[in-house]
Amino acid sequence: MQMISSAVQKQMEGASWIRQMFERGLELKRRFGAENVFDFSLGNPDIPPPPKTGAMLSALAEQAKSPMAFGYCPNAGLPAFREAIAGMLTRQQEVAVAATEVVITCGAAGALTSFFRAVIEPGDEVICPAPYFVEYGTYCGHFGGVLKPIPALLPSFQPDVDAMEKAVTDRTRVILINSPNNPTGCVYPQETLARLGRLVERVNATRERPLFLVSDEPYRFLAYDGAVVPPVLPLSPFALLVGSFSKSLSLAGERVGYIAANPSMPDAALLMSAVAMTSRTLGFVNAPVIGQRLAMGLLEEGVDLSIYARRRDAMAKVLADAGIAFTMPQGAFYFFPEAPGGDDLAFTEALLRHNVLAVPGRGFGLPGYFRLSFSVENKVITGSAAGFVAAAAEMR
Amino acid sequence: MQMISSAVQKQMEGASWIRQMFERGLELKRRFGAENVFDFSLGNPDIPPPPKTGAMLSALAEQAKSPMAFGYCPNAGLPAFREAIAGMLTRQQEVAVAATEVVITCGAAGALTSFFRAVIEPGDEVICPAPYFVEYGTYCGHFGGVLKPIPALLPSFQPDVDAMEKAVTDRTRVILINSPNNPTGCVYPQETLARLGRLVERVNATRERPLFLVSDEPYRFLAYDGAVVPPVLPLSPFALLVGSFSKSLSLAGERVGYIAANPSMPDAALLMSAVAMTSRTLGFVNAPVIGQRLAMGLLEEGVDLSIYARRRDAMAKVLADAGIAFTMPQGAFYFFPEAPGGDDLAFTEALLRHNVLAVPGRGFGLPGYFRLSFSVENKVITGSAAGFVAAAAEMR
Repeated sequence: MQMISSAVQKQMEGASWIRQMFERGLELKRRFGAENVFDFSLGNPDIPPPPKTGAMLSALAEQAKSPMAFGYCPNAGLPAFREAIAGMLTRQQEVAVAATEVVITCGAAGALTSFFRAVIEPGDEVICPAPYFVEYGTYCGHFGGVLKPIPALLPSFQPDVDAMEKAVTDRTRVILINSPNNPTGCVYPQETLARLGRLVERVNATRERPLFLVSDEPYRFLAYDGAVVPPVLPLSPFALLVGSFSKSLSLAGERVGYIAANPSMPDAALLMSAVAMTSRTLGFVNAPVIGQRLAMGLLEEGVDLSIYARRRDAMAKVLADAGIAFTMPQGAFYFFPEAPGGDDLAFTEALLRHNVLAVPGRGFGLPGYFRLSFSVENKVITGSAAGFVAAAAEMR
Repeated sequence: MQMISSAVQKQMEGASWIRQMFERGLELKRRFGAENVFDFSLGNPDIPPPPKTGAMLSALAEQAKSPMAFGYCPNAGLPAFREAIAGMLTRQQEVAVAATEVVITCGAAGALTSFFRAVIEPGDEVICPAPYFVEYGTYCGHFGGVLKPIPALLPSFQPDVDAMEKAVTDRTRVILINSPNNPTGCVYPQETLARLGRLVERVNATRERPLFLVSDEPYRFLAYDGAVVPPVLPLSPFALLVGSFSKSLSLAGERVGYIAANPSMPDAALLMSAVAMTSRTLGFVNAPVIGQRLAMGLLEEGVDLSIYARRRDAMAKVLADAGIAFTMPQGAFYFFPEAPGGDDLAFTEALLRHNVLAVPGRGFGLPGYFRLSFSVENKVITGSAAGFVAAAAEMR
């Protein structure tokens, strides 16, 4: 029986490497016990939410007696929360963002799919640097969009702006960037961003149908050694920012994020209305209200970043001790090291034999590398050291 | 500038009548004060959540100290919650539903879009009785599906099964029903459902690509005068049920629902895996975890239904006193009366002149009628009486 559509059948067959590792990991954990498996496959924030979260939930418990406490809210989000985010972005992005230029979404993922639905015609192209977050292709593909990943510069993982410009065609609708980057942990400097902004401006000078520059930034809060994550909205009138509270507040399961447009974008309010509408018609309806209220109350809070910083150092030591080459991540919670021997599949298989779970780089569009999430307890990092040494030795 | 795609542009121009009424209502409330406007336009449950909700939130406040309290959960939902829903459905639907046949979704809307994404090829048709919930067309249209509404029988609003069968083609992928119904409040009896089940079986006897029977049931809990809402999963191996906690627990803004398949469906687990995957790739990722935990703890609870029953009676009296013809709703919280004079637009405009907000039937695919939501305080119903009388008189 043909139960599912051909497009989705194909997506299922190409089931993501992250998911495959997840399932291999479950099997290993059953066999050897969870404490003997070192799982770096998932980017699931594991630091407790800010201490104030409990008090916020208690306050919501009081409000639960009121009739509309958790009823529908406007598709674009709670008005006070949109205002609060506009205020936060005005300070952070150095442009005056108004509430009408912000839509609250079901996480960054919901922001991207709602945005793609609003702007993409079938056949439109989305350009992004590779390696990249693997779902981007599916997000735009639902609506006939085609992802065109452009190899990043190595070993810095910085976007190759010249190659991206060459790849632009009449059908290019979006340039999508992600900094701090998943999977590489690199942060794009102001100079690179400015070049991307100028690229977009050059293209739009002769266009009736604008090219958008979208920055997906769930990891903006997480940069190390004083690295600066420059604002993106000022780069172009057609710049948009996608943010999320999944990682900054450890609320990944509650699904709250947002999308904001440069206030000088022509028809910014029209575009944002369209995104609010597609957010409704895609079935999100509105971002979860409890999550919205939590995030609104926690806007000045954050998880303890020093925990991630210490883990990064511990992970770097494990890799260095195993003789594995890597670029030190400046942000997010991922390493994207070179696979010893050059074959990422062979190396992640070798790691599996030592109960270490990592995701092969081909899962992110760049074979020869592998991804480690260091959003794990310190004992997982230190416990994996022998496995990395042994697996790397097997590759020689 | 062409900011948005042509398909979405078209959707925005046809902005829903519900939304237009909402905006007209805001204007009236500004001018005359909210207490002088009688708003029956929105189906927003306004009864407080069950009393236990506050205690559940307080318990969650305790758990907020734990690292993964609100982290990602499996795309298909919290395993314990899937189990609990499977148990609930096994009792309610009289078939043995397993957790693998249930996917937790972002409300009923998220269930429908994820399901449509999983099964629809461009050009596939979705048949539903008219009048119908207006977003159905957009839900399947995102993925190239085409809604084919078939006029219901009048004045009962029961589905015209013969006409639906005649409308089936090789491209018909889904028959979508909704009982208790929005906008009519009618409940489909066992005999009608059985005929729909046999229709689906006849079609599937010669098909490699099955026709699905999907019942959208956010109002299952809300039937009056002892009306029975029969189970739908036993109707066909290809039957699916879509449910929600939005109305039964007054949690509409928190977005928790589910989809469940008849356990005897061939490849039910494959289809449910596909729905879990499309739910992830459409950007839902997972239904909000706080909402999932609340609903799991409130599975045996419900809002006070007697409040809705009293309102139904009060609304019926207002309509009868104004000489407006209607079929008494057996479920949900809507009346779908005939527009005095026969023109639903003219009559809802007349109502507006008396500060009464209702939605014209054409917004649901049936001109000549109008929808009233009685999910409003009693004083709104009684306060509107003079307006209904006056507006109806103007039509004579």
